[in-house]
Amino acid sequence: MELNIALLAGDGIGPEVIAQAVKVCDAVADKYNHKIHWRPALTGAAAIDAVGDPYPEETHAICASSDAVLFGAIGHPRFDNDPSAKVRPEQGLLKMRQKLGLFANVRPTFTFPSLIDRSPLKRERIEGTDLVFLRELTGGIYFGKRGREDDGETAFDTCTYTRKEVQRLAKKGFEMAMKRSKKLCCVDKANVLESSRLWRETVQAMEKEYPEVQVSYEFVDAVAMRLVQWPNSYDVLITENLFGDILTDEASVISGSMGLMPSASLGESIGLYEPIHGSYPQAAGKDIANPLATVLSAAMMFDDFGLFQEAEAIRDVVNRSLSEGVVTEDLADKGKSYKTSEVGNWLAKHL
Amino acid sequence: MELNIALLAGDGIGPEVIAQAVKVCDAVADKYNHKIHWRPALTGAAAIDAVGDPYPEETHAICASSDAVLFGAIGHPRFDNDPSAKVRPEQGLLKMRQKLGLFANVRPTFTFPSLIDRSPLKRERIEGTDLVFLRELTGGIYFGKRGREDDGETAFDTCTYTRKEVQRLAKKGFEMAMKRSKKLCCVDKANVLESSRLWRETVQAMEKEYPEVQVSYEFVDAVAMRLVQWPNSYDVLITENLFGDILTDEASVISGSMGLMPSASLGESIGLYEPIHGSYPQAAGKDIANPLATVLSAAMMFDDFGLFQEAEAIRDVVNRSLSEGVVTEDLADKGKSYKTSEVGNWLAKHL
Ligand SMILES: CC(C)[C@H](C(=O)O)[C@@H](O)C(=O)O
Ligand SMILES: CC(C)[C@H](C(=O)O)[C@@H](O)C(=O)O
Repeated sequence: MELNIALLAGDGIGPEVIAQAVKVCDAVADKYNHKIHWRPALTGAAAIDAVGDPYPEETHAICASSDAVLFGAIGHPRFDNDPSAKVRPEQGLLKMRQKLGLFANVRPTFTFPSLIDRSPLKRERIEGTDLVFLRELTGGIYFGKRGREDDGETAFDTCTYTRKEVQRLAKKGFEMAMKRSKKLCCVDKANVLESSRLWRETVQAMEKEYPEVQVSYEFVDAVAMRLVQWPNSYDVLITENLFGDILTDEASVISGSMGLMPSASLGESIGLYEPIHGSYPQAAGKDIANPLATVLSAAMMFDDFGLFQEAEAIRDVVNRSLSEGVVTEDLADKGKSYKTSEVGNWLAKHL
Repeated sequence: MELNIALLAGDGIGPEVIAQAVKVCDAVADKYNHKIHWRPALTGAAAIDAVGDPYPEETHAICASSDAVLFGAIGHPRFDNDPSAKVRPEQGLLKMRQKLGLFANVRPTFTFPSLIDRSPLKRERIEGTDLVFLRELTGGIYFGKRGREDDGETAFDTCTYTRKEVQRLAKKGFEMAMKRSKKLCCVDKANVLESSRLWRETVQAMEKEYPEVQVSYEFVDAVAMRLVQWPNSYDVLITENLFGDILTDEASVISGSMGLMPSASLGESIGLYEPIHGSYPQAAGKDIANPLATVLSAAMMFDDFGLFQEAEAIRDVVNRSLSEGVVTEDLADKGKSYKTSEVGNWLAKHL
């Protein structure tokens, strides 16, 4: 297969972890006779510095004409103190999601047996946890009308959803449930919000198309509790944009492997793959960042190309690196630690 | 002191736990020479059954003319399957909050040394946890304009906040911080929402009135993570209605004492005190429910009357009941367990 992949390294440790994912993907391509054309483009603070826009037109053109986007991380501390600044790296993220139509954010949370004791939760609570959130990513209160009234004394934001938006997200949820344990949980606040009632009635109406899927409906506050109490009781969860923002972050820390969690953002055609961690500026340039979340995001990309063997090969070599202790300092505890680039080299070599 | 207290027992185990709080309050009143006039009134499913309204006018009249409201729990399983039903117990809750002007929901999360191992989190993560959320309770997306458009195909909800609403909540937060460790965290999503930007700028402007308070600003998704990772790093947190709904529930399970957590909802004059647990219909009528959360809510009520000795006396006797094993079956593990009413009697007697 010939693949064009846009490469958005971004800020901080982004370029370093992306470089390792590239090595691993190239090794996979070599082994399975594919050819990857990497197409680097600017984003985040790096793009603001270069052209004053965190998601420039040229970058969008490259992404939109590629088969997938591999994304590092964005964000720079100089933007931290003023969340309302006109030009911010995160705006690039939102613009990109919208312009590429990436309406479904897929965020798995699972445990690595060798890392389970890093979780803040007790072992018996998380053993067997293997859940995946589908967060709606281009609608809701993130993209509704917002502004000020009364000379700035009143502020408002609007959460809007159409039935179609709910359907296309829910469809992905049902399909994912069919491939997994056939359990789907719709997370909403239907006892208060009209948009949540639309979510619930839309999903309810779709149940008959997937008679094998067992669907449950839970309120967002209850899920925020149960995720901490019994994360392993969930499988596929679907939810709207803002609830998904909060709950996927909460879910990511329970496994204790937050730094290793991959993600995908999917649209009708193109997909974007990125680690869930941020740009971690303190570690930038030190060759110490853990590249595994980015490498595992690349595995999700191969899955979505239908290249399942290739994806499995990546996951296998990642597991081997963990069990053989070829890890960056964040996972090394008292043992020997490896540089970011060394882990990347090892993975590429042992694939 | 002569106190008029509205007594809203509500549904399920509500009446049983309220009955114990009444015994304890009466014992405190006896000891410290107060007189409490209890003023029972209907709410929740019980009120829907009786008069078709979960928060009837008569109930409101009783609450509004009392010094405080002691509240049990509301909710009945027959409402569970249809979150959009026209008349639901929760609507009583929302109506009550609004009509009584209960704009600040105070929810502490703390650990009991003897119960710490019940937490889903590891001991070292929660030891010393003693935080309190102030959730705005009468504004935001709960009370904004909502509805449908396009023949029901589009649904919307509006989150609105005025500077005054933020100020009065934040004021309570700063005052509480002054009485505690002088640390305040404002939780928002100011990188996306205009209402959050109003929150942040309003709190920032208030900082100079409380120069001793160290204020931090965190995004709601980050707080959802850190609450699980290091709950003991927080002290006072202030936030808007919906974020507060999600985060206070999340926080309540980390201590492992969820069934014991009290709460207060405060307005300009009257306060309402209630356990954070629900109506637990499965246990209703069995005399097995744990009354301690309701009893501790009553302690918060005495605190707010300025009757600190009385409040301490209640907390003391609760701690003694725990260390002497006078507990309901949920806390008894392998040991002897007591009935709801027996625990209430013991507390009243040993005060
Ligand atoms: C940076 C921010 C706008 C973004 C979001 O809220 O979607 C982030 O938290 C995420 O989850 O990707
Ligand atoms: C029942 C529901 C409307 C209510 C809320 O969301 O406020 C509840 O979850 C709470 O937190 O008191």
